[in-house]
Amino acid sequence: MRSETDLVRFLQRRFPAGGGVRVGIGDDAAVLRGSPGCDWVVTSDLLVENVHFLRPAQPARAVGWKALARSLSDIAAMAAHPRYALVALAVPAATPASWVKEFFAGVAALARRHRVQVVGGDFSSAAQVVAEVQVMGEVRRGRALLRSGARPGQAIFVSGRLGTSALGALCVRARLGSKALPVRRALRAHFYPQPRLKLAEALARRGASALIDLSDGLSTDLHHLCEASGVGARLYVERIPTVKLPGPLARRLRTNALELALHGGEDYELLFTLPETKAARLPRSLAGVPLTRIGETTKERGVVLVEHGRRRRLEARGWDHFRRG
Amino acid sequence: MRSETDLVRFLQRRFPAGGGVRVGIGDDAAVLRGSPGCDWVVTSDLLVENVHFLRPAQPARAVGWKALARSLSDIAAMAAHPRYALVALAVPAATPASWVKEFFAGVAALARRHRVQVVGGDFSSAAQVVAEVQVMGEVRRGRALLRSGARPGQAIFVSGRLGTSALGALCVRARLGSKALPVRRALRAHFYPQPRLKLAEALARRGASALIDLSDGLSTDLHHLCEASGVGARLYVERIPTVKLPGPLARRLRTNALELALHGGEDYELLFTLPETKAARLPRSLAGVPLTRIGETTKERGVVLVEHGRRRRLEARGWDHFRRG
Repeated sequence: MRSETDLVRFLQRRFPAGGGVRVGIGDDAAVLRGSPGCDWVVTSDLLVENVHFLRPAQPARAVGWKALARSLSDIAAMAAHPRYALVALAVPAATPASWVKEFFAGVAALARRHRVQVVGGDFSSAAQVVAEVQVMGEVRRGRALLRSGARPGQAIFVSGRLGTSALGALCVRARLGSKALPVRRALRAHFYPQPRLKLAEALARRGASALIDLSDGLSTDLHHLCEASGVGARLYVERIPTVKLPGPLARRLRTNALELALHGGEDYELLFTLPETKAARLPRSLAGVPLTRIGETTKERGVVLVEHGRRRRLEARGWDHFRRG
Repeated sequence: MRSETDLVRFLQRRFPAGGGVRVGIGDDAAVLRGSPGCDWVVTSDLLVENVHFLRPAQPARAVGWKALARSLSDIAAMAAHPRYALVALAVPAATPASWVKEFFAGVAALARRHRVQVVGGDFSSAAQVVAEVQVMGEVRRGRALLRSGARPGQAIFVSGRLGTSALGALCVRARLGSKALPVRRALRAHFYPQPRLKLAEALARRGASALIDLSDGLSTDLHHLCEASGVGARLYVERIPTVKLPGPLARRLRTNALELALHGGEDYELLFTLPETKAARLPRSLAGVPLTRIGETTKERGVVLVEHGRRRRLEARGWDHFRRG
């Protein structure tokens, strides 16, 4: 980009106003029309180079995609419908214009898929790439699906297959080529996660009681849900849908599928609870995503992992930016 | 902070939900009630260490204050009323908890002053401090005041005194002590800018035709307003309200008051246009802020600066993150 004005013009072409957007990119702020009878659901997520991604290894398009995907996944976790996004991007001064354009191509590809309008944002220089995306969504008044709705004795489900993105992250760090199918799949899941928006809206209709997205890892996010709801949980190791991990790859990466599923983050699958009567009527997949019952909520606090009949406590060992060592 | 959970609890106490906030900090996203008959006005602003501020020189409280002030000023620039904020903060892993708490104390002090509720955000580690604040505001449907509303032959005004914040920035970089009154005032303006929210709403009622906030500097922001409105402008140097700059200080910092007023950014004062009939009825100050007529819009494009009857073109020389050299 030769100037900020050039970049703004590029973005105005890429993300035109219209629909509910009265004023889009280019003024001091965006002006948006809301719908009557709706609550707004808003979220903000950071994506930082060398923390959330490695720049040479992750294509710019994937960085843009994931920056938006993280926020869309939070909107899904409230069972809301995304409408508008603001994108703030800081890049080192020497970043080529092509990188910035590819970043926004990634944002645009995912935005188009979910009919989200990008209406504004901000730019800055910085020592490392920092992307920050805010999404505003709508939900029927009073119908947002919270983390705090679980009661003891309810069924716990997850969508998809857990640990795939964490496997991709390990492959990136180990600089593994992407010829083998398990590696290719894992990289794809890591680079281009799919926020489960349709699935979440379907789960709300089917009476899910609590919902959270798996961004920090099952062990951490389940603790979040349990604490917010004032319940505990029992998980069955055999039931957890783990990524297919061939032995040689596992040894090379010094990991195993259960570890990845429990503590690997960024799957952006959904973790949710349902009363037993509703759980019994839940199909095996919804909106094209397989659903697996992995346990139930309990009155006793804490998360217990059951493996071949033996029980052990499961600690939250997923992502925490402030934990050291 | 010992963990992200600790930080979230600290923030939940500091920024409690209530009012229009159905779900505040702690779930995947915030849930907000909108008002009927209103448009939403949203903006997002970055504040980056070593780009927008120097950490040892600028107190954490001032960094938090300014991070919010930038976005509130954008809401003012639309003549909207701020309601909710999301704060995303990335800090180096070794940052003391006291710094983070002081940062949020600064956010909270300004938020309280304008009755803005902080409803969520995100955290990350990073190589340098990056703060990103989004504010959502409301405006009566269709009444947002844009940059594009100026017509030829209208009066151009600014609020306050320009260049004070830029003088403060120079004092910070020169490590000047804060004993002398002009230095103290300049540092205060630089560290704790006042978004002109009440003034903007008053200007909307008095028929302002176009409005922008002075974040990048008068020369740059006036070009933005003119380009958006399809007009040019004539400015009178003698009329521009500049900061009081004693000779010795000016020589030491190698600057002058006009340079600071024209090209120094971050004053967060308002630049606006009015039809002549309405300009004639404008008081000399509104909402406690002095207003000064500095020129008028013209049919011919470009900005002309008139000094002692001589004319020269004024180029945009304020802030641009993508300009080099």
